[in-house]
Formats: sequence, C-alpha cells, structure tokens
Amino acid sequence: MTTEQTAKDFVALLKEGKHEEAANRFNADDIASYENMPGPMAVCHGREAVRQKGEWWVAGHEVHDFSSEGPYLNGDQYAVRFHFDVTVKETGERRVMDEVGLYTVRNGKVVEERFFDERLRFRRPLRSPRTNDQAAPVRDPCLNRSGMDLGSPGARPWADRRSGPRECPG
Amino acid sequence: MTTEQTAKDFVALLKEGKHEEAANRFNADDIASYENMPGPMAVCHGREAVRQKGEWWVAGHEVHDFSSEGPYLNGDQYAVRFHFDVTVKETGERRVMDEVGLYTVRNGKVVEERFFDERLRFRRPLRSPRTNDQAAPVRDPCLNRSGMDLGSPGARPWADRRSGPRECPG
Repeated sequence: MTTEQTAKDFVALLKEGKHEEAANRFNADDIASYENMPGPMAVCHGREAVRQKGEWWVAGHEVHDFSSEGPYLNGDQYAVRFHFDVTVKETGERRVMDEVGLYTVRNGKVVEERFFDERLRFRRPLRSPRTNDQAAPVRDPCLNRSGMDLGSPGARPWADRRSGPRECPG
Repeated sequence: MTTEQTAKDFVALLKEGKHEEAANRFNADDIASYENMPGPMAVCHGREAVRQKGEWWVAGHEVHDFSSEGPYLNGDQYAVRFHFDVTVKETGERRVMDEVGLYTVRNGKVVEERFFDERLRFRRPLRSPRTNDQAAPVRDPCLNRSGMDLGSPGARPWADRRSGPRECPG
C-alpha cells in the first residue's frame, strides 16, 4: 500500500470519527508518538502505549466538536489538520484549538506520529466565571488524536496534567 | 532565539504578505527545501536556490488569495497551514488549495522546509470553458511559499511544469 493510500484511508476513518479503528489498522507495532508537552508523556513508544494515551485523553475531555482535514502529502509522510472544541472535565475549561499531525509511513504502517499545536485561540472557563478570558493561554499537554475513540467510555484518567510529569503508559 | 519565537516571527511576516522578508531573515544558508512533486525541483539546497524557486512560482501565478495560519509547534519544528487561490498564468487554470509547511529550526534559522499538499479541491479553467470542472484534479508541482514575495514582479518563468523535469535553480 502506498503512503498516499495509507494516508487517504487513515484520514477517511478519522473523518468518520473512527479514531480507534484508524489506530488499530495503521499504527505499527513500534510506533513512536511525540506530543508538544514537557515530561515523559511527550514521547510514547508502541501501539499499546499510544492506545492508552488516547484513552486517557478521551476520558479527560468532553468533546463538542472534532474535525480532521487532509491528508497533505509528501514522500513517506503526510500531514492532517485537526480542529477541536473540548471541555476539560476536571477544570471545566472550554478549549478550541487547531493542530497539525505529521505521520511517517513505512510499509503501509504509521511508524511515527508527531503533533504540532498552537497557543489557544480562546478558552472559556465554565466553572470559574471570574477567570479572565484574556488571561495568558494555557496549552493542554494532554492531546492525542490517534488511537482515540471519541465515543469510548471510561478508560483511565491518570494524574491530572497539572500534577507534574506522568509516566508514559504501557 | 527559541524555535517558538522564530516560528512566531516567521509566520507574522507571512501573515503580512512579507514572504521574501521572512525567507531573507530566517532561511539558513544551507536550507534544504522539499516539495511534493517529481523531478529535480522536488529538492533544492541553499538560500539562493530557494529564493529563485519562489520567484519562479510567483512569476507563473496570479494570486487572488493567500493566507497563512499558525505556527503549530513541537520541539525544533513548526508547522504552518496555507490556503491559496491562484490562476496559473500559462494555462488559465484557477486553483484553490490548502497546504501544510513543516519547518525545522537550528540556531534560530530554518534549515529545512517541507511542503505537504492535498489534491485539488476544485479547479476552474478560465480559458477553456469546455473543460469539465469535475475532471480529475491535477496537482500543481510548482508550489513554494517561502522566499516568495507575492507582490514581486517578473522573475524567471522557467520551463512549464509539463515540459518535464527542471533543474533546481542556483
């Protein structure tokens, strides 16, 4: 399977909301995942670690909107543009963000995913009305789209992101 | 200068339409540039080659709209999302596309730029009214944002992209 076909099939699943199926089908056993955050969660290795990170993210967020655009192609890599609108369950913060995911393919499997995020365009605190909407934006370090099933229940909400570095699961 | 500050300053210039200034200020002498196209133009090395490629692109297109979003950050890299609406001067084809640019920074300079493109979402031929708007999209291999000054005149329209591989300038 060419990188282009891998990319198109992968993104087609994302557009249907089938994030978990996309990960199951395309993530290589030895996939490496890189997030824009400090601490050990910044890098995860292996399908299972990536899957658990996705579950953890899903468990911690109420998703109001999530869309994917692409793929954008070059060589053995493709990019995907993400837009999402979520509420962080623990804090009630509403977050609307765009991101870019960069995927590297080998033999029809994603061997690396790397996520690029912007500063928040706005956040609307739901539980803390006194919080200033103009406050300096806070980046959510707990972002992962691949391996995520937006409709999945439960999973393991590990330590809150503010409580310091976490171990990469798996 | 951090990668984040480099990215923000770079994209701020793009958003002002100052593509040439962004390239002049941030491209490393040994920058490598990768496009999603076949042939020798797919890879260019060096500031001057990248500058000439940008001039060539500008000379070949009438730009109706060009916008940049970002930056999106991770480590020593940042991504930028592009949207543009152009007419290819030679053929009269109207092209509306999104792209993603990925930039790698070393010591405050861009040492690599890599562009990811989608298939065309539509094209509207202006000089050939019988052409079917539903025709299979054709990717424009002549895309480069960095080093491009949308307002610059002239430059060198090398061979048309359909006439086979071109030498990378410079």
